[in-house]
This record gives sequence, C-alpha cells and structure tokens, in this order.
Amino acid sequence: MPGNSIGSVFRLTAFGESHGPAIGGVIDGCPAGLPIDALRVQQELDRRRPGSTPLGTSRQEADHVEWLSGMLDGRTLGTPIAFLIRNNDALSADYDALKEVYRPGHADRVYDVKYGLRDHRGGGRSSARVTAAAVVGGAIARQMLLNLGVEVAAFVSQVGEVRVTRWPQDLERRWIDPVRCPDESSSAAMAAAIEEARNEGDSLGGAVSCVIRGLPVGLGEPIYDKLDADLAKAMLSINASKAFAIGEGFGAAGMRGSQHNKLSQGGVTGGISDGDELRFEVAFKPPSTIAMPQQATTRSGDVVMLEARGRHDPCVVPRAVPIVEAMSCLVLADHWLRLRCTRL
Amino acid sequence: MPGNSIGSVFRLTAFGESHGPAIGGVIDGCPAGLPIDALRVQQELDRRRPGSTPLGTSRQEADHVEWLSGMLDGRTLGTPIAFLIRNNDALSADYDALKEVYRPGHADRVYDVKYGLRDHRGGGRSSARVTAAAVVGGAIARQMLLNLGVEVAAFVSQVGEVRVTRWPQDLERRWIDPVRCPDESSSAAMAAAIEEARNEGDSLGGAVSCVIRGLPVGLGEPIYDKLDADLAKAMLSINASKAFAIGEGFGAAGMRGSQHNKLSQGGVTGGISDGDELRFEVAFKPPSTIAMPQQATTRSGDVVMLEARGRHDPCVVPRAVPIVEAMSCLVLADHWLRLRCTRL
Amino acid sequence: MPGNSIGSVFRLTAFGESHGPAIGGVIDGCPAGLPIDALRVQQELDRRRPGSTPLGTSRQEADHVEWLSGMLDGRTLGTPIAFLIRNNDALSADYDALKEVYRPGHADRVYDVKYGLRDHRGGGRSSARVTAAAVVGGAIARQMLLNLGVEVAAFVSQVGEVRVTRWPQDLERRWIDPVRCPDESSSAAMAAAIEEARNEGDSLGGAVSCVIRGLPVGLGEPIYDKLDADLAKAMLSINASKAFAIGEGFGAAGMRGSQHNKLSQGGVTGGISDGDELRFEVAFKPPSTIAMPQQATTRSGDVVMLEARGRHDPCVVPRAVPIVEAMSCLVLADHWLRLRCTRL
Amino acid sequence: MPGNSIGSVFRLTAFGESHGPAIGGVIDGCPAGLPIDALRVQQELDRRRPGSTPLGTSRQEADHVEWLSGMLDGRTLGTPIAFLIRNNDALSADYDALKEVYRPGHADRVYDVKYGLRDHRGGGRSSARVTAAAVVGGAIARQMLLNLGVEVAAFVSQVGEVRVTRWPQDLERRWIDPVRCPDESSSAAMAAAIEEARNEGDSLGGAVSCVIRGLPVGLGEPIYDKLDADLAKAMLSINASKAFAIGEGFGAAGMRGSQHNKLSQGGVTGGISDGDELRFEVAFKPPSTIAMPQQATTRSGDVVMLEARGRHDPCVVPRAVPIVEAMSCLVLADHWLRLRCTRL
Repeated sequence: MPGNSIGSVFRLTAFGESHGPAIGGVIDGCPAGLPIDALRVQQELDRRRPGSTPLGTSRQEADHVEWLSGMLDGRTLGTPIAFLIRNNDALSADYDALKEVYRPGHADRVYDVKYGLRDHRGGGRSSARVTAAAVVGGAIARQMLLNLGVEVAAFVSQVGEVRVTRWPQDLERRWIDPVRCPDESSSAAMAAAIEEARNEGDSLGGAVSCVIRGLPVGLGEPIYDKLDADLAKAMLSINASKAFAIGEGFGAAGMRGSQHNKLSQGGVTGGISDGDELRFEVAFKPPSTIAMPQQATTRSGDVVMLEARGRHDPCVVPRAVPIVEAMSCLVLADHWLRLRCTRL
Repeated sequence: MPGNSIGSVFRLTAFGESHGPAIGGVIDGCPAGLPIDALRVQQELDRRRPGSTPLGTSRQEADHVEWLSGMLDGRTLGTPIAFLIRNNDALSADYDALKEVYRPGHADRVYDVKYGLRDHRGGGRSSARVTAAAVVGGAIARQMLLNLGVEVAAFVSQVGEVRVTRWPQDLERRWIDPVRCPDESSSAAMAAAIEEARNEGDSLGGAVSCVIRGLPVGLGEPIYDKLDADLAKAMLSINASKAFAIGEGFGAAGMRGSQHNKLSQGGVTGGISDGDELRFEVAFKPPSTIAMPQQATTRSGDVVMLEARGRHDPCVVPRAVPIVEAMSCLVLADHWLRLRCTRL
Repeated sequence: MPGNSIGSVFRLTAFGESHGPAIGGVIDGCPAGLPIDALRVQQELDRRRPGSTPLGTSRQEADHVEWLSGMLDGRTLGTPIAFLIRNNDALSADYDALKEVYRPGHADRVYDVKYGLRDHRGGGRSSARVTAAAVVGGAIARQMLLNLGVEVAAFVSQVGEVRVTRWPQDLERRWIDPVRCPDESSSAAMAAAIEEARNEGDSLGGAVSCVIRGLPVGLGEPIYDKLDADLAKAMLSINASKAFAIGEGFGAAGMRGSQHNKLSQGGVTGGISDGDELRFEVAFKPPSTIAMPQQATTRSGDVVMLEARGRHDPCVVPRAVPIVEAMSCLVLADHWLRLRCTRL
Repeated sequence: MPGNSIGSVFRLTAFGESHGPAIGGVIDGCPAGLPIDALRVQQELDRRRPGSTPLGTSRQEADHVEWLSGMLDGRTLGTPIAFLIRNNDALSADYDALKEVYRPGHADRVYDVKYGLRDHRGGGRSSARVTAAAVVGGAIARQMLLNLGVEVAAFVSQVGEVRVTRWPQDLERRWIDPVRCPDESSSAAMAAAIEEARNEGDSLGGAVSCVIRGLPVGLGEPIYDKLDADLAKAMLSINASKAFAIGEGFGAAGMRGSQHNKLSQGGVTGGISDGDELRFEVAFKPPSTIAMPQQATTRSGDVVMLEARGRHDPCVVPRAVPIVEAMSCLVLADHWLRLRCTRL
C-alpha cells in the first residue's frame, strides 16, 4: 500500500519529484462552502521557499500555486481540490555527476535498493522540495481551522547549540525574523551560528517548537489514532526530522508524578485534546549536504570523494517552520472532521 | 473515522474496556501458512502482566489468550485471526467512588466531553490494560518477522533520574532483570529509585530504548508513511508516552553536518530502513495515580481531594518494554508486507 | 491488503471459520450514546439461522450473540463493539471426506490455490455461516438508522421460475411467511417449487428485493463511493449472489430517455440518495451442493463422483433476506456518518 | 470520508469538474520499473472522447494527457503518477440558463442539497467528463496487466431493444465499429436505433459486456473485497449505470443447481478468480438530457419547461466501452498487487 496520502477524512495525496515537471497534491474531503483566500495560500508557500530568508540558499524558486479543481467563485465545492506547482528553477545538470554516486546521509541508496531505480536529479521524491505540497494543503486546512478559532504557530527554538532561553510572547514576530525565532536575543545568536557554519562549509541541526491555541476538547481517536500519535507521525514524515516531544517530552522521564501532575500534559491527555494550549517540539538533524569534501559510495560500491555543488542551506530549521505548521494543520483539520462522527 | 486499527496490510483492530467482559483483537492480513507457537504468544503476554515483576502492582491478572479464528493445525489460514482475553480480576467496586470524579492526569474528563458518557471502571478504554491486545498482535507479527531474521529488543534505559550509562550488550538479560534493564548496575539503581518512590506514595517516569536487527533495506513508504513516522505514531499511541527519538534524536539538533554524517541515522534514511541497526527511544511520564492525596475536579466542576485506592504501579516502564516491542513488531510486519508491492 | 472489513466510518471487521471456535466481529465507529436492544439483535440473528423456516436445512444452530465490549448500561460507549457467536453444532466429521476433494461450484479449490492451504471443514471462511457476523453488525447499524426514521425491508421476489407478480404492500408479513415473501399467492408457488427441488435432490436460485424508506437526500460520496456502488459491492459480497440492479436495472437498457425520465431512478441519482424510496434487487445462484451425485476433482487432479452428505438448503433466498437487510444497514450507517463531513 | 479514490494498493485519486481548469488524477502505488507507452494511454483516452464515433455528440474535446510526475526515461519510479487533462472546449455559457434549474434525471438537485452549493456548469463533478481520469488510470493499470498476460475487452451488447444475438468472436473489431459492437449485424441495427432516437430528439439505454482473459487463480479478498464485489462497485460508479451481472447474472435466479453447476460461475468463485474467462455485463440508462421539452424544477421549487441546448449523446454506451475497460483494469491491478501479500 502506497504512502503518499495523509489524513483519513481531510486527506492530502501529494505527488512530484524535485526536478520533474511539477509537484502538487489533491485534497479530498475539504468540506463544501469554505471561502479560500488564494493569496494567503501563496503567502504561506512563499515562506517555505528557498531564498525567503537571507540565511538560506540563494536559489529563488518561483513557487506559484496553480489551482486545478474543487473551487467555484472562491468557495470550495466539496469536491477534490487539486493544485500544482511547476518546477521552474531545476538545474538538473548540477546533479548529473550524482547519477552513479550515493550522497552520504541522503536517501539515494535506499531509494535505489527499494525501487530498483531512482530519480537522481535533486533527490527526486526524497527531496525536501516535496514539502511544498504539504504547505499548500496545510494552508487550506488552516483556513478551515481559523473559522473555528484554532491558531497554529511554530518557531525556531534551537539552532545548533543555541537554544531559546524563554518562551516567546509575540509569536507573530516569527515571520519578520530571518531565523523564524521570535526571541530577538536568541535569534541573533542563531543567525551568527548559521553564518559561521556556512563559512566553514558545514551545516547545523536545530529544533522547531509549535503552539496550538483554541482547540476544543475532544480531538483524537483512541487508541491508535491519538492526536499526539498523529502529530508525531506527521512531524517524523518531514525531511530530516529525528525526534518529537509533547508537553514535557523526554523531561517527563525524569520526573515524579507529584511533580508532573501539576504541569500541563502538553494539551493532549489520553490521546485527546484537553483544552490546554498544545505544545510540541521537533528536532532536525543538520543537512547532510555540506561544502566540505566527504566520502561517498557509488552504485558499484566504490568509495569516492564528493564535493557538493549546487546551492544548499546550512541550516533548514527556519524553512521548516511553515512546514511544521502546515503538517499540524493537516492533522488538526482531519481530526476536527473525525470528531463529528463520535456521538449519535 | 474510528481509530482502533493499526497497520494497513498487516492490520490489528483492537477492542475492549478495562473492566468489560474481555479485551482482544482481530488481525486481518497475516499471511497464510505461518506456524504459530501459541505458548510463546502467551509468554509475551505474561511479560506485560501486572505482577510479572516484583516492582509492579500486586494485581495478578491471569491474562489468558483465547483463539477464536484464523488458524488450523497450528498454522495461519490467511483469514482473520481473532483472540480475546477475559477480564477476570476486575474489582470494579474499587472504582465506584470515581464515577463522578475526574482523576488528575487521566483521560476521565476528555472521554466524558468527547463521547458524552464514559466507562469509569478502571479508565475503560483509556486504561493501559488495552495494550494487552497489542502484545498479542505483536507476538503474531514477531513470529513472522523471526522467519525473516528480524529481531526486536527493547529495554528500560531510564527510570526517573537514573539513566543507563552504557549501551547493554546482552539484551536477552532484560527478561530476567526485574526492571527490564540488562545493565546490572543501572538496574540496581533504578530498582532502588522505584522502591523509594513507592514508599513515598509517589511515582516515576522513565524511558525505553528499542533495537531492531536484521531489517532489510527498503522498509518504509515515502512520503507520509515513512518507517520512522509509523514507529513514532505507534509509540505515541502507547499510554503515558510523551516523546520519540530515532538515531541521535534531540541530540542531532545540536550537531554539525560534518559530525552527524559520520554517525548512523538510527537505521532509517529518508524514511526507509537503510540496513543499519535501528535504534529509537520512547519517554514515559510518571503514572498520574499516586498514593498521596491530590486535588481533583468532579463532573459538576467541584474541587475535591482524592486519595487513590486500588493497586497501582509506581513506575510503568518495566511493563512498557513488551509493549514497545509489540508495537514495533506490528509496524515492521505491516511495512514488510507493503514492501512486496513496490516493484513490478 | 486484507478484505474482512466493510465501511469506512461505521466499520465492521468480521472473523471466523464455519467450524472454528467462533465467528464474530468488531464494529469500530458506532457513535457513542446509542441505546442497544440486545434482544432485537438476537431476533435478527435468529431469522438468518438454519431451521428458522420449515423450508431450510434441518440444522438447528443455536446462534447466540455474546457481547465483549463497547457498551455500558445498554448504551454504546463510542469504543469498538466486539461480539462473538460460538460454533456449537459443528459436525466437522461430516466434512472429513472432503479434505482432498473440491466440491463443484464451491470455493474449495480457489482457496487452496490462493492461500496454499484451506480449512476444509464446512468451507471454512467461504461458508455462508460467516454472514451471521454481518447480521449482528447490521442489527446494530439498524438501531442507529431507526433513530433517524430509516427503514430497510427485503423480501424474496423470485424462487426459480416463480416471480412475484406485484409489488407487496405489507412488508412486515415477510417474517411470518416461510419463504420470506409477503405476497401470499407467490409465496405458495415458491414454497411448492422449493419442495419439488428438495424431493428431486436439486436446488433453486432466486432473487431478493430490498426497499429503503426515510433516507435523507445526500447519502453517497462521488465519484467512487456512490451509494449505489457501495450497495452493489455489499450485495455481491454475499455468498452466491450474481447480480445487482437498482431502479429499472437491466430494464433501463431497453428504454428511451423520454420514458425513463418519468420513472424513479431507484432512489439514487448521480450516486447520491435523492429522497425517493430506494429499491434494488439481488440475484442468487442455486446452491451448488445438491443431493444428486456430481463429478468433482480432487487436490491431485483426479475426477471422482461426489454425493453430498450433511444437511443443506435447497434454496437459500429465504435466509438471504435478513442478510441483504443487514448489509444494506451497514452501508447506510456508514454513509449517514460520512455525510456529516460534507459541509463546513 | 471522501470518495474520490479507488483501489487500496494500486490507488487512483481523481479530481476535476467538467468546466473547471482541468480534470486529472494521481495514481499512488503503481510499482516501480513499469515501462509506460504514453501514446497508447493517449489512444485509450481518444476512444472515450466525444466525437470519437460518428454516432456521438459533435463536441470535439481535444483531450490531451499531461504527465506531472512519477516517471523518468519512460519508466515508473514507484512514486505517485500525476496527470491532468485541460478542459479546453468548455462552453460554459451554454449552461448559464441552468444555474437555477435542476435538469430532470441529473444530479443537479442532489448535489445542491448535499453540498449546499454546486457547480452548475455542465454538471460539475457529476458530469460524465470525470470518467476521462479513470480512462488514463486504467490505461496505466492495463500496461501492468498486459505484462502479466491479462486482457480486458468490453463491447456494446445492447442498445435500446437491440441485443447481440451471439457472443462476438473477434473482440478487436470493437474499435473499428462505430457502435463498439464487434457483431456486425447487431451493430447495424444498433446504429439505426441510435439515429432514429436522435432524429426524434430522444435517447436510448444500453448495455456493455466485458471479457477478461488470462487472470491467474486467486484474485479477490474475502469476505468483503471479493473480486466480483469490487467489479460491481467500480461499474456502478460509472455515470448512468444501473445494474451489474456476473456469469449467468439474473438468469441464475431461475436455474436449478444441477443445471448451474455445469456452467461457468463467470470467472469468479467464492469471490476469487477461478481461472475461467471472467464475464460480466453492465446496464446503462438512457441519457436524461433529450432534445424534447421536459418539465424541470428550479431551486426555488417552481416547475418550468426545459429544452436542452448544447450537444449531447443520444446513446452513451459506445463511449462507455473504454470506461468499463478502464475501471476493470483499475480493479484488477489493485487485486493483483493485493494477492502478493496472501502467503508467507
């Protein structure tokens, strides 16, 4: 069974390779009658774009959403909403040298072994470019959630060894901050760390925190589709993510019950939203592509030295912020509809 | 859409309330011709049982698997395998006092709000007792995986503030160790911490690590049913779990690419098993039920003082070990079958 | 992917072999708060039972529903409703002779080829006995539908060459009529035809019509889960069914638009319930097991003469009536819940 | 839960309204490594096109498949295959008059009631135009099936009261025959009947038969996803279809077991392909849009006289032939992959 759909009632099926004709998706299950602000969707997509912050890669992908179906006069019809984004800035020639080489830390080898062939151009389907479809899908989901008073805001909480020291108050600042961290002093340190890594031809890991406000009590379907379980799955499906924590996360392991019972569960109790602010965090590994020469293996098993060409982010977490939000919105929209069938 | 099934090709649908007639499940999609060692399934279930270690609750639930369908002469027929476990030792009267009270940290209130009514007896469907069905399902999955040379072993890596200092060599020891920690010196400190918490009427959190050996390259379905994404979901669906980390986990957030590229990705690259040993860790909060008096709210909104009666574990992680293994086996069996449809 | 579940929101997963320990099912997705009249469920099951009419087999299976989960104080909890029916009257020895023989018209051979082994006792999972689980599931679905004013009534419309000459008025009569045909004159002719076939050691095909009243406009999910498409699937999944027709059915093929536009579409237009009475018909082949000697092939490919022992129905359509109703109720309950997510 | 996907392992998700920007689909689950002959896909699509036979509407929709993802160098990558077909010849102005009117026999009213709004332009999503996506999906499925030696051929077996008198031998002739009936004498009578209906401003129903050769034993998943059940569902999901029959169909209802046991079951026994040629038939009602004036109701409940403008087929069955084949191929491809998980 294939794996390119997420959600059961509000369901996104995504498609596209990094350097193929287009990426995009089909949202099946968006309720009829929802007004869609297409400009706002485009704006969310722009936030994910390489080049959207001065700290990222210099690629300027002109990601433009083209709508194919599911709307009339600015409202959803209740039929599938299909959209695509053309791959305009695909310098496939940059990747010709990689046809026979498996880049270290990338999915090149596992795709080749799994499928018996692979699209070597920019990682094909394993590229982080595929997250653009989720951002569009999430933007539609968000427009439904806003109607309900649900707000989803993520921000960068860690870059390398720099971690936010206090919980940010004004989350709206994230969009004007180049690191997507609304805590100004932390942001400056993070930006410096990223520049340092770039200058050294290296890359940095980081973390993104997410806050969800306005959720009703009741979202989440025990015992296997709990709200936090579906959020964890959605987050681990984002390229380069390595960990998910809700509430006190790994910190809870070191606590006593008398202590933990006084804290928030993170907004989910028994797998169901409990009315508290929902808070989780996601860890991302440092990008595997670095400017320093690295050992790599070829399809035939030889070891070669590889120097990355092309343009690459030294740290992906600023661009991960809109993706974490989008994946959250997809999960919440799905569970919000699922809740409708719980009672007689 | 309901949430009591896990897996798409190898699929467990679980049922049962803590103090209802029985809990159990139906496995649909187990291939035909698999020899089933029923004694071994019972043995795995016994490891989850309260009272299976001297450190747990004194309840002695006689969990006995009764097979209803799907097998003939010790082999699977390719038809659904149904099983049940009677709830024998259900002292529902212990819970009568809780009919109008929402226990702190428990799912009592969210179930009531979500469904409009709830089974107050022992938490009903939100009880950790429901994990027994997963253990049986996972035991069937494991018998399929063993045929393929796949081994799944979990162990306690943290209890409160006590953490294993080194990676255990002999994982088989976990079953003879009362804390399910194969590292003897750590185990002793963990056991002492648990006894101390019990004596103080308190409880402790902890963590479970899991190692999977013998996986072929290729398990995992991009881009939304990645192997690590499905493992994260399965782990977060276990009662009281709060975090999941694969490979370096949150540690990766603080690393540089030149450093992380030299390490294992944790056995999964790009969402697909890469042939390395797969390693992940799950954090569990301390049990919310403690012997100390706690404030609780009633259905009508009053605040009352609650003193837990009944018999409860001061630390659940030793009993979580077979559950983490079982959930892992369910995910792996499903993905192993899904892999069959990848190529022409 | 396995096939023992039906429905997506109101979802029955069935299990059990004809001569295994039990058959049964799990209903996941039944809304919370539905009062369940267990006696009425048992009554519906009794109508399917062999021996429930004087015209059927002499087997007297004491089909008793045992409830395992999902209810408290006579109401559904919103958790999975599991049930089982023990196989008491299983004279497996009757079937020993069939271990190496494939009965003509039965699924013996295809199961053996598909799964590599089979349960030869009474057809195993291919036995019509498995429909008992659907009858219980459908009875639960019906109790939800009755709340909504939806009534589902099926009746025998054809036995061999005897066809009802007019549409019956009083459908309630079907349960007191031995042929389950509320048209008295047709019923007498049908009963005579069945007795004649029995005396000759032969069997008869037939048809069942179904009427659904009180449906709201809007049930059915274009473009692949249309209401009539899901009904057709449910009916073709019943043992021995060979055809499904809605509205004018095959008669519509011979009509002109000017003529057909004046008729009902059968209650479904464009795949969506349109407010008219819904009417469809299902054809059943004659039972393959007959008392006359027949040629059969063995597992090793030899041709042998086979004389059926055991007790068998000369005509199954009277017993198919509650099954057609149950399968209809399952489809309608599912679509009724799915409708809840159509609009904002 | 939405309904625009068909198949579980080989899965088509379709999108598009009749007069929106485009229709299309995403195939998720097509195995990697399949060579795709894009010209052949286009050719199958051309056979569905209005104007493809002299008997249809005069619309000349230039349906051109545009591929968006999932292939590299003419082979499938194992990733989602997305495609679209632009809606070029959309004379939406023809439909302006219909904004407030519900056409008799069409889904206009039920869509409006179900979704609270509708796309009135050419029926929106309820238009038969949406079958073009299935034809493309089916063409991909067929290229997989041809590798396995499976052939699927449908033909017109009835137009109005004209029925084929004998089973056609040379099914390849269907594509050169304007009625898509390979039986020359029947075809002439059918063509005459269609012209007569057109001249009278009326329309005609009909039927399509389908033959599948080369199937292995074993396709079909008891007990609810039987092969014939899934074929029935797929056929009833085609616009204007009213009935499905396999093997002897409704004729079986009038037979005796001694007689029916000697016949083919139609290629499916117990829901599983049995190695015989698979044969089924589908009935289609006459098109509801006719040139004669008809009574219609408006959104506000008034009765008006309606005269169809625009260009319409007097009989859709010739154009239904490639659609029946495509839907069959989708079902078979899905079950062929599902079969891979049946045995250890």
